[in-house]
Amino acid sequence: MIISRAYKKLLSMAKDVAVLSTAESLIHWDMETMMPPGAVEQRSLQLSLLTRINHQMSTEPKIGKLLAIIKTNPEYDALGQAEKRNIYLINKNYREQTSLPEELVAELAKQEAITVNVWKKAKAQKNFSLFKPDLQKLLNLSKEAAEILMKVKETKTPYEALIDNFEPKMTADKITATFNQLQGGLKHLIGKIQSSQIKPDTTMLHLPVPAENQRRIAQLLTQTLGYDTASPAAHGRIDETEHPFTTGYYDDVRITTHYYPDNYASSIFSVLHESGHALYEQNLNPEWKYQPIGSTCSYGIHESQSRFYENVIGRSKEFWAGFMPKLKKAAPSVANVELDKFVKAINKVEFSKIRVEADEVTYNLHVIVRFEIERDLFADKITVNELPEVWNQKYADYLGVKVQDDSEGVMQDTHWASGLYGYFPSYALGNIYSGQIAGAVTKDLPGWRSQLAVGKLNQLNEWLKRNIHSQSDLYDPEELIKKATGRCLNSEAYLSYLNEKYSAIYGF
Amino acid sequence: MIISRAYKKLLSMAKDVAVLSTAESLIHWDMETMMPPGAVEQRSLQLSLLTRINHQMSTEPKIGKLLAIIKTNPEYDALGQAEKRNIYLINKNYREQTSLPEELVAELAKQEAITVNVWKKAKAQKNFSLFKPDLQKLLNLSKEAAEILMKVKETKTPYEALIDNFEPKMTADKITATFNQLQGGLKHLIGKIQSSQIKPDTTMLHLPVPAENQRRIAQLLTQTLGYDTASPAAHGRIDETEHPFTTGYYDDVRITTHYYPDNYASSIFSVLHESGHALYEQNLNPEWKYQPIGSTCSYGIHESQSRFYENVIGRSKEFWAGFMPKLKKAAPSVANVELDKFVKAINKVEFSKIRVEADEVTYNLHVIVRFEIERDLFADKITVNELPEVWNQKYADYLGVKVQDDSEGVMQDTHWASGLYGYFPSYALGNIYSGQIAGAVTKDLPGWRSQLAVGKLNQLNEWLKRNIHSQSDLYDPEELIKKATGRCLNSEAYLSYLNEKYSAIYGF
Repeated sequence: MIISRAYKKLLSMAKDVAVLSTAESLIHWDMETMMPPGAVEQRSLQLSLLTRINHQMSTEPKIGKLLAIIKTNPEYDALGQAEKRNIYLINKNYREQTSLPEELVAELAKQEAITVNVWKKAKAQKNFSLFKPDLQKLLNLSKEAAEILMKVKETKTPYEALIDNFEPKMTADKITATFNQLQGGLKHLIGKIQSSQIKPDTTMLHLPVPAENQRRIAQLLTQTLGYDTASPAAHGRIDETEHPFTTGYYDDVRITTHYYPDNYASSIFSVLHESGHALYEQNLNPEWKYQPIGSTCSYGIHESQSRFYENVIGRSKEFWAGFMPKLKKAAPSVANVELDKFVKAINKVEFSKIRVEADEVTYNLHVIVRFEIERDLFADKITVNELPEVWNQKYADYLGVKVQDDSEGVMQDTHWASGLYGYFPSYALGNIYSGQIAGAVTKDLPGWRSQLAVGKLNQLNEWLKRNIHSQSDLYDPEELIKKATGRCLNSEAYLSYLNEKYSAIYGF
Repeated sequence: MIISRAYKKLLSMAKDVAVLSTAESLIHWDMETMMPPGAVEQRSLQLSLLTRINHQMSTEPKIGKLLAIIKTNPEYDALGQAEKRNIYLINKNYREQTSLPEELVAELAKQEAITVNVWKKAKAQKNFSLFKPDLQKLLNLSKEAAEILMKVKETKTPYEALIDNFEPKMTADKITATFNQLQGGLKHLIGKIQSSQIKPDTTMLHLPVPAENQRRIAQLLTQTLGYDTASPAAHGRIDETEHPFTTGYYDDVRITTHYYPDNYASSIFSVLHESGHALYEQNLNPEWKYQPIGSTCSYGIHESQSRFYENVIGRSKEFWAGFMPKLKKAAPSVANVELDKFVKAINKVEFSKIRVEADEVTYNLHVIVRFEIERDLFADKITVNELPEVWNQKYADYLGVKVQDDSEGVMQDTHWASGLYGYFPSYALGNIYSGQIAGAVTKDLPGWRSQLAVGKLNQLNEWLKRNIHSQSDLYDPEELIKKATGRCLNSEAYLSYLNEKYSAIYGF
C-alpha cells in the first residue's frame, strides 16, 4: 500500500514536469516560427522562468523522500518492469539534477548564452581568436559539471558523463571501436565510388520549384509517411524556419522546413528527416504518456528514425518509384526528370567541408572528426588553442579537403558554442542504428521495398512502431537496439546496407 | 532598509507571476490559431498546470509575510505613490486569492468547463432546459465565491464583488444610475434616427473582397493606427480565428480577425477594435513592466480604447476621408464606393437581436439588458427558470424586437456559461468612457479630426498614451477617467458625441 501510494505520487510529480516541458517546447517553437521580432526580451524571460520552475519541480526534496520510501520497501522487488524502470529514471534524473550546484547551473546557462552570441559574431568575421576566450570559459564550466556528473553516473571519464546525457550507458571506448570499424568500411566504399565511371548529374535538383509547390510536396510526403499534418484530426503541422527542426510530444508534434526555390530537394529531405523524428514522438506507447518511460530512448535512437525515413526510405529507388508521379504533379517543372537519374542525383557522394551539406556516406566522417576532438579535449590531450589546427588536419586526413578558414572549419557548428558536448556522436550512432534496423526489417518483412514502390508504408511503420517507437524509454539504447535487431551497436549492417545501395548506384 | 528589501522581493515574486501569465496567454493564443486539432488533451493539461502554478505563486504565504513587514514598518508612509499602489495591488490580489478555498476554486473551474460545453449543445438545439441545471450549479458556486469575495473586497453586495473583478471600485448603484441616464438619451436619439428620411444603404459593404485583399487592408489599417504588425521590429501580428481577440503584453501583442469574402467591413472593424486593445497593452509605462501597476487599469478602460479606435476614429467620416484611397487600392471591387454613402452605411442604426452584430448606438441597450438581469439574478429577484421570459420581455421593451427562440435570446452569449458574471457592464462602460475621452481630446487637440482626414494619428495616439495607456494601473478606473477627462463616470459626453455624429448622418 505505502509503496503504491508513493509510486503514484512520484508519477504525478513527474507528469507535471513532463507537461511543463511540452509547454516549454511550444514556446520555443513559437519563438522560431511565429513570434514578432520585437518580442525577444519577453520570450527570454518566459523561457528562463519556465526552466527555473522545471528545475524546482525536478529537484523537490519530496522526490528524494518518496524514492527512499520505495527503495527500502520490501514490496519493491515485486514491482513490474515498467514500474522499476520509471523509478530508475526518476532516481537517475533526480540524483543528476540535485548533484549540480545551483550556481554552476546558472553560470553554465549564462555562459552558454554569451558564447553562442560571440560564436555568431566570430563566425561572421572568420575570427577564431574572438571566440576562443568564451569557448574556454564554457568548456571549463562544462568540465566542472562533467566531473560532478561522472561521480553520480559512475562513468569512466567526465566526457562519458556528457555522452550519457544523450546516449545513456554508451561509452567512449565502444564508440571509438565502432567508429574505427565504420571509418575503415567507409574508406573502402568511398574508394570504390571515387573510381567509378558514373558521375551523377545533380542539375535536375536545382530546377525552379516555387515555395507554394514545395509546400504541397511537403504535405504529400508527410501524408505518404503517415505523419498527419493536414486532416481535421491532425496532431502535426509544418512551418518554415531557416534551420529545420521537430518539436513536441504525442498529440502535438510539429516540424519545420525551408523552401529554397532553386533547391527543392533540400525541403524534401528535411521534411522526410523531421517526419522520422515526428513519427517516433507520435508512436510512443500511449499507456505511458507523461511518465518517465513514456518518452523517447536517446538522441541516437531519435536520429536513427529521422535517418531511416530520410535515407533508408527517402533516398531509395523504390520510394521514388512510388512518389515520383506525385512529385511531378505537384511540381510541373520537374516533369521530365527520369527516375533513375534522379535517384543517382540524390545519392551523389562527394567530400565536402560542411557537415550539414554532406551526403549520406561522408556525413559520418564529419561526425567522427568531432567525436575524436571532443574526447581528446575533455581528456586534456588538445587545448582550445589547438582546435583549428587539429580540425583542419583531420579534415585533410579523413575527408581530403582543405579548410580555408575557421568559419567553414571549427566554427561551422553551433554545438560547442551552446555547451552541447557529447551530442555529436548521436548523429553517426543514429546512422549505424538505422542500418541495423534496415537489416532487421529486411529479415522480418522481405517484401518491404516492393511495398515502398507502391507508396505503402504501413507494414514498415508498424514494424518501427512495434520494435522502436512504442518501446519508448523502457530500455537503454543498446538494449533496445539489441532487442529490435538481434545485435548490440555494430556498424556491419550499416556498412552492408551502404555497400549494397551504392554498388547499384555507382555500378561496382 | 528592511522595507526596501521586502518590497523588492515582493516585486520580484509579482514579476514571476506576470511573466508566467504572458506564457499562459501565448499558449491560449496558439490554441486558437495554430494548434493541430488533435492536440486538445495536451493543451488542456498544459493550461491547467500553468493555472495551478500561477495560483501557487500568487498565494505563497511568503507574500503575506512580506506584506506584513512592509505595512507595519514606520518607513511605509514615506514610500512614493507608485510603490504604495504596487503594495495595494499585491495585497488586494493576495487577500482575494487566498480567501477562496482551493476546493471551491477547483469546483468552479470544473463546473465552468461543463457548463460551457452544455451551453454549446443547448444553443445548437435551441433548448434552454438542457442548459438550465448546469447554469444553476455554476450560478450557485459563483454566488458562493461572490459572498466570500464581498467580505474581502468590502462591497455592498456579492454581485458588486464580481463587478470589482473587472471594474475595480465600481458599484452597481453607480452603474444603474449611469445606464438609466444613458438609456434615456439613447431612446431620444434612436427616436430621431427612426423618424429620419435617410435610410443608409449597406449593399456596398457586401461587395466581394477576397481574403487576400482583406489581409492587405488589415495590415494597412494597423500601420495607419501605429500598431506595428509587419516591420522587422514589430511587436505584433495578425492571425485568423472565428472570433476576433487580442492577447499579449508590451513586447508581444497579437490580434486576430476573420475574413468573410462577402463582408469585408466585418474584418475592418474587428481589426480597428482589436488594434485599440493592442495599442493600450503596448503603450503601458515601460518603467513598470511586469509590476502590478504595469498592467492595464480595468476591462471597461480596455474596452474604451478598442471602442475609441473602432467607433470614434474608425467610423468617422474624417478617418475614411484619409483611408478610402488605400482601401480602394487594396480592394479594387469597392472602387466606385462614395465616401459619404460609405460612412452612412457603416453607421446604420437598427434594432437587432444579437449583441455582437449590433451598431454603435443600440449596442448599449443589449448590455443594459444583461446588466439588469445579472444584478437581479444575484439579488435573487429572478430565478434561472425565469431567465428566458425576463430576457424576451426586456428585448421587447428596450429594443422593440421579438426573440423567436432562446438561442437568439438568453443563450446567445458565452459569458454566463463561462462564469463571467459582472463582465457585461464593462462593454457599455467602455463606450461611455470612450465618449468622455472624445470630449477631452476635442478640447485638448481641437484639430484632431482634420489630422485624421490626412491619415495622421500621432497627436491623438500621444494623447491617449499620455492620459490613458501609460497611466497603466496607477489608478482605479474612475480616478483615471477623472484625471484624463476632468469628470467621473458620466454618460453626457458620450451622448453628445453620439448626437452630434448621428445628426450629421441622419440629417436632424
